[in-house]
Amino acid sequence: MSFARLDMLNRKLEALGHAQAMLGVDEAVMMPDGGGEKRAEAMAMLAAMSHEMASGPEVGEMIATAEGEDLSPEQRTALREQKRVYVNLTCLSSDFVKRQVEARVRSEQLWRKLRPAGDWKSFLPALTQVIELAREEAQRRADVLKLDPYDALIEQFDPGSRVAAIAPVFAELKAFLKDFIPQAIAAQKPAQKNFSASFPIDRQKALGETMMKAVGFDFEHGRLDVSHHPFCGGVPTDVRMTTRYDTADFLSALMGVLHETGHGLYEQGLPKAWSHWSVGSARGMTVHESQSLFVEKQIGRSAEFWEWAMPLVREHLGPAAIDGWEIEDLLLHVHEVKTGLIRVDADETTYPLHVILRYEIEKGLVEGTIRPRDVPEEWHARMSEYLGLSTRDNYKDGPMQDVHWPSGAFGYFPSYTLGAMIAAQLWASLEKDHPGARDDMRNGRFVEINGWRRDKVWSQASRYSTPELLVRATGEKLNGRHFEEHLRRRYLA
Amino acid sequence: MSFARLDMLNRKLEALGHAQAMLGVDEAVMMPDGGGEKRAEAMAMLAAMSHEMASGPEVGEMIATAEGEDLSPEQRTALREQKRVYVNLTCLSSDFVKRQVEARVRSEQLWRKLRPAGDWKSFLPALTQVIELAREEAQRRADVLKLDPYDALIEQFDPGSRVAAIAPVFAELKAFLKDFIPQAIAAQKPAQKNFSASFPIDRQKALGETMMKAVGFDFEHGRLDVSHHPFCGGVPTDVRMTTRYDTADFLSALMGVLHETGHGLYEQGLPKAWSHWSVGSARGMTVHESQSLFVEKQIGRSAEFWEWAMPLVREHLGPAAIDGWEIEDLLLHVHEVKTGLIRVDADETTYPLHVILRYEIEKGLVEGTIRPRDVPEEWHARMSEYLGLSTRDNYKDGPMQDVHWPSGAFGYFPSYTLGAMIAAQLWASLEKDHPGARDDMRNGRFVEINGWRRDKVWSQASRYSTPELLVRATGEKLNGRHFEEHLRRRYLA
Repeated sequence: MSFARLDMLNRKLEALGHAQAMLGVDEAVMMPDGGGEKRAEAMAMLAAMSHEMASGPEVGEMIATAEGEDLSPEQRTALREQKRVYVNLTCLSSDFVKRQVEARVRSEQLWRKLRPAGDWKSFLPALTQVIELAREEAQRRADVLKLDPYDALIEQFDPGSRVAAIAPVFAELKAFLKDFIPQAIAAQKPAQKNFSASFPIDRQKALGETMMKAVGFDFEHGRLDVSHHPFCGGVPTDVRMTTRYDTADFLSALMGVLHETGHGLYEQGLPKAWSHWSVGSARGMTVHESQSLFVEKQIGRSAEFWEWAMPLVREHLGPAAIDGWEIEDLLLHVHEVKTGLIRVDADETTYPLHVILRYEIEKGLVEGTIRPRDVPEEWHARMSEYLGLSTRDNYKDGPMQDVHWPSGAFGYFPSYTLGAMIAAQLWASLEKDHPGARDDMRNGRFVEINGWRRDKVWSQASRYSTPELLVRATGEKLNGRHFEEHLRRRYLA
Repeated sequence: MSFARLDMLNRKLEALGHAQAMLGVDEAVMMPDGGGEKRAEAMAMLAAMSHEMASGPEVGEMIATAEGEDLSPEQRTALREQKRVYVNLTCLSSDFVKRQVEARVRSEQLWRKLRPAGDWKSFLPALTQVIELAREEAQRRADVLKLDPYDALIEQFDPGSRVAAIAPVFAELKAFLKDFIPQAIAAQKPAQKNFSASFPIDRQKALGETMMKAVGFDFEHGRLDVSHHPFCGGVPTDVRMTTRYDTADFLSALMGVLHETGHGLYEQGLPKAWSHWSVGSARGMTVHESQSLFVEKQIGRSAEFWEWAMPLVREHLGPAAIDGWEIEDLLLHVHEVKTGLIRVDADETTYPLHVILRYEIEKGLVEGTIRPRDVPEEWHARMSEYLGLSTRDNYKDGPMQDVHWPSGAFGYFPSYTLGAMIAAQLWASLEKDHPGARDDMRNGRFVEINGWRRDKVWSQASRYSTPELLVRATGEKLNGRHFEEHLRRRYLA
């Protein structure tokens, strides 16, 4: 039976994926520098073996034959998702992929070298080549998938999301935020208290782990370590999260830990029986980001959460840590609104404008309405209009700040803000079903909140496209007003 | 070209081996318990994929074709070793291997359950089955390899070693030790000083790492962690060593660390260009053990080493650690001779008798001259004769103490003592070439000592069989007198 053969193939692929995931974690957390070269070789070889096994013509034949077999509805859903992945894997010729990988590696390396000095002029030729190849990729995928080129790229990160749905939502959000941000800035008080104590790493770690546990992270199936760039990796049965600690500011690690915990909970909540099929994996970057932002923004930056969390901070970091602080003092830190040029430093009110700026420009690049050499001007014009800031002649803090384009990731940026909006929409829906949700947070109780999320999101894995998943979970399509209400409540109330 | 195709195949196998090695390390050092089930699945799958890739008939054809190709002498050596491995991999039918694995797993699990109570009677049927299968394996291998059955098993752990060479050496050593041990016990003074301080783990770790570095371990390509059972794992470019700490006795971790460092230096010293060919791997268990015992016994327990090491202990563990100790006080601890029932607790003088006992019994089991049910009596008789100790009705500390036979490893035990003898022979040869070697140790200088070892052993990898390697390194065959002289010098001088 072809379905059974696919099942066996998927088990092999899962083992290779398990190895790649764990080797990636080990590389960031444990590996000494000298191990890097051979590790990179091994990783590339495992990736090539996986790709070959997953994309060979015999896989296509197995899928086609299995479609005619007597399958349960669950099996049929799994097969449909495998077919989607297979078609996406085989859209591009291996010759094209090779050319593209080479150009991307070269461009990313050059970007790392030129970014500190913001040398846009020297970088432009490499970026131009990456963009040309992205346009070619988009066209090739579009032809096979019967989608618009930019949609075909979005599909790689967020299956089912389309410009037709995103564009109006982003337009409305942009209009909202252009008015909202100045109001939020005007309404906020400056922080009254600042950190003066030093926060030992082992205590910060214990605090982080206590909060992870409380919000539902299962330490029987995961752990928290340290790495230069925080991430959530590993496999669903063994989720490896990392953070990095700043002894002068415990909130920096803690907020990061809560964010990664959101990713971790999603992974831990995926259905075990289908772990080797793509239908059992997380549903793309947007839904993943919605889960991390749910924990970080909806829960971890809410006033209710801090009613419960303040005593925990004192308990773990000692009485001198935030001596004399009221909850308002802490909220002024986690709710600070401030415009700035750098996306990764942005707060939740300004972040979407950074994303929309990039979305508009990359869409233009892919569609050919913006030329690579015009990116700095397009960037400056939008940054001025959306956030009142100039990036004229400042490439480093302008279009050279992110790794995405240099590494060839076009269609990824929208995920961040779609994820933030979905998180707010999920919270609103959850609160409708479970009106005690905010009281739960005040009491450090996350069982019902997580039960709802498990039911609506985690256990659904990749059974549906992102838009379908959202409608099934919340009863409505993507609706930016939930995010707007969330911001209004938090920053203007 | 077939040789080039084999080269590519070996790179894939190296990547799979890299993954398996690192997943094994991660499992022991980092993995939370809940990750174990899926990890075991992934490991089994990767092992099966490796085995399939390495043992398929097309590999045999590639080897045969490559033999007719125009190859350099190095390539020809690599091909010869690959052929040896291939023949050994394909001696057994996959059906037989499956039966054997099942019996071994069952037997080892049963052993873990029954060992604490020493329930030999309940264990015997499972062990008998494992022994029957080992005899069958030995016969199958013997037919293909044109070797005696027990030699065919030894070949799996120590290529080239044969009973014809081992038997007289073991017989002589046994005769020597039966006289020597009582003399050594009579000659030794009891320890005058005992540990009273507590040794914090972080300081023990720093001390261990300082010594590792001094004896040549490259921390750019390796690290030291903690695990329940100490081991040396990873890959040559990234050697992962572990230990466990006893805060009441710093020597227990330190001696273990020196032992594992010996393994680690061998791995780090293997030739990089051939890392993906079996010719570039370590030459079996005996040579590996010779390298660990070289560092632990020849270096790490020598009086000269401690002239240099005592001040380091004080520096790292603080002035109270071994307050008032003279070097002799410390040597009384690292040179203690004591008979006992347990192999892993034995000192270097009694250890070989534990091994020879097992060698004689397992040889008899494989050859059919000893029946499984007679093992306890054979054990007791030898233990009484060699060490003057009884194991009558004491199965737990008798034939049930080791995991080797329950897990089906017959032919492995000789490696331990062959390794110890080779370590002594290598030291004697090194000292002839480099008479300042003991002075080097007094000064914590290991450059020349390691240079000699790199030249004679590490860089030779699997180019030669163990006996050939030894002759090339020391100019003579395995000669037990070097080990005897080593013991005389250390324990009777």
